[in-house]
Amino acid sequence: MDSRTGLPIVGLVGAGQLARMTHQAGISLGLSVRVLAETPDDGAALVTPGVQVGDYRSLEDLRVFARGCDVVSFDHEHVRSDHIRALIADGANVYPGADALRYAQNKRAMRERLGELGIPCPPWRAIDAASDLVDFGAAVGWPLVVKAATGGYDGKGVWTVDDEPAGAALVDRLRSEGVPVLAEQRVPIARELAAVVARSPFGQGAAWPVVETVQRDGICVEVVAPAPELDDERADEAQRLALRVAASLGVVGVLAVELFEDADGCLLVNELAMRPHNSAHWTIEGSRTSQFEQHLRAVLDYPLGTTTTTAPVTVMVNLLGGPDDVVPKSLDERVHHCLAGWPDVKIHLYGKSFRPGRKVGHVTALGTDLASVRERARGAAAYLMNGDASR
Amino acid sequence: MDSRTGLPIVGLVGAGQLARMTHQAGISLGLSVRVLAETPDDGAALVTPGVQVGDYRSLEDLRVFARGCDVVSFDHEHVRSDHIRALIADGANVYPGADALRYAQNKRAMRERLGELGIPCPPWRAIDAASDLVDFGAAVGWPLVVKAATGGYDGKGVWTVDDEPAGAALVDRLRSEGVPVLAEQRVPIARELAAVVARSPFGQGAAWPVVETVQRDGICVEVVAPAPELDDERADEAQRLALRVAASLGVVGVLAVELFEDADGCLLVNELAMRPHNSAHWTIEGSRTSQFEQHLRAVLDYPLGTTTTTAPVTVMVNLLGGPDDVVPKSLDERVHHCLAGWPDVKIHLYGKSFRPGRKVGHVTALGTDLASVRERARGAAAYLMNGDASR
Repeated sequence: MDSRTGLPIVGLVGAGQLARMTHQAGISLGLSVRVLAETPDDGAALVTPGVQVGDYRSLEDLRVFARGCDVVSFDHEHVRSDHIRALIADGANVYPGADALRYAQNKRAMRERLGELGIPCPPWRAIDAASDLVDFGAAVGWPLVVKAATGGYDGKGVWTVDDEPAGAALVDRLRSEGVPVLAEQRVPIARELAAVVARSPFGQGAAWPVVETVQRDGICVEVVAPAPELDDERADEAQRLALRVAASLGVVGVLAVELFEDADGCLLVNELAMRPHNSAHWTIEGSRTSQFEQHLRAVLDYPLGTTTTTAPVTVMVNLLGGPDDVVPKSLDERVHHCLAGWPDVKIHLYGKSFRPGRKVGHVTALGTDLASVRERARGAAAYLMNGDASR
Repeated sequence: MDSRTGLPIVGLVGAGQLARMTHQAGISLGLSVRVLAETPDDGAALVTPGVQVGDYRSLEDLRVFARGCDVVSFDHEHVRSDHIRALIADGANVYPGADALRYAQNKRAMRERLGELGIPCPPWRAIDAASDLVDFGAAVGWPLVVKAATGGYDGKGVWTVDDEPAGAALVDRLRSEGVPVLAEQRVPIARELAAVVARSPFGQGAAWPVVETVQRDGICVEVVAPAPELDDERADEAQRLALRVAASLGVVGVLAVELFEDADGCLLVNELAMRPHNSAHWTIEGSRTSQFEQHLRAVLDYPLGTTTTTAPVTVMVNLLGGPDDVVPKSLDERVHHCLAGWPDVKIHLYGKSFRPGRKVGHVTALGTDLASVRERARGAAAYLMNGDASR
């Protein structure tokens, strides 16, 4: 407990935008949110006084950090399992725990476990040698999707290979680098969805409406909540699936289940993330309880909040750094003009410098008509990135 | 500009809950909000890294603080006019400026100026001696409301006096203490309202729906938005009045106009506040743009945000420290149980210790039916304060 407030101290390993927005939500609950930052200029470190600059790969740094916290959670999924176990052995409360987090850290472990649970996934195989990939291609057909089982994010660590020579060369390279590999059939997908839920140690679960996510180059660029034209039965199925995954894997906190919807409306699990997730940023304005508040409630074993929506349609568009830094106006000027042009769109900036492809913020628009809500969100986002309303 | 983000640095003099919630809103806009705090444990100082501990009555402390900020604004209205003028002479941007703030700092100046503008106020008189009060009582009748012209807040500095002897004794005491005094007729009021608006240096104005405020012992305990059964014409009149006051006095930032509504539905100005105000805390969830975001947009001369509501009814109930500290559960435990009992009510805690009568937080409920929304907000607030659902 923070003796100044009589309320808990929550430590987040990592200090990116997820920690930044979690701190923002924690202010309302009277919580003291601390971050273990890589640099003092990390997005979350800029806005909270509880900053320890350190290395999330160092057990010693993690121990010093955890000692002052009532509960430790994460901005990212890169903390080693053995380190998490060591913290728990020290007496720390760490959520999600190592046993759950493993399935977000290792895609082979995730596919195996989901298979055991009978959760639908794309056909896949663990690849330990090029010959495994060749066999798998012969069985399910080319092209295949090859994935690094660990360390990937935002489209990194994922490759589509068209034939045996290309696939074998890739696998040989990855294996020589010591990267664990799996391959998946490239299933024909109609669109991508995400079912985001939260679960507390007590076992309470809560689900937000299922959303449609739009990806470009493996990076989420847009989220529409709720997913358009998703029938109630399918939406219900996706929510139940995500809640079941959360309970079965022992997840505590927010769990995002990224899904493929195929042409027949069947759902397959693509990826899992065990933390607040880009596909639920829309909940800040679009739901009575945001994913950031909910994550805090969950890891503190507080009862979860209502997930009802505040508008019929919410669209979130990511702000991605452009191909170059040549924009005609300063960021401050673009913010100024964007607020004039889109007075109802909510802007979220992460305090990051603009690098190509980097997520530097997002915007959210709400309303009743999908086409106009989407147009407003896209327009505001494009202007913030380009400073040019005509682009 | 903050070189780390390319976005402005906003300094707030004072670090109470208003600065705390303003920082919270500033995170979304990528702003760096700094506070001049009295102690490192002030509500806002607990949640932002940009803390200077100093004395808002010291010009030197103010100068050091202002030097690092693109714009300076306030958590309270207690900074001396000559100090504000000195900061502006140094080249600082300070909003609201001394000329406007004067009318929130001195009730005599406010009544004079509103009178010149033809804005309806209760009949009043400047009181420089007991005989002035006796004369005024003879003219308008007893009882009278006597006010310290400066330094009052939350019911402090306001007295009702029933007759000449009591009134004369009070005035003699206040004058001997050097307190400037005014008296007002105690007008029969049906209820209290508040019209809250924002204005930018450019001159843009924006008004939230007019609310009903419920006071107990001079302290706001509850706010209902929009004010129930207020006809459109009267609501429009109140909004126009507040926007006119903001423009006429040159206010920049949020202006709260506290109003009396009499039995005939006529509106009279009670008080002015030139900062985010308790009567608009409901806007955090209840309006597309919160008063805290709007205040930042206004003082930065950004375009103002949409003030449309997000629900038909919003009720905010203040959390006030009780008559003693004997509550059956810890604050953390009460929060826990409150979240279970009222999963849709939003809690805001200010990081303050509980002292009798002190505002330590607020709760907000939204919905469509006033009675049930109010019951939920009151129930959650009572539980958080008492830890006993039966009280």
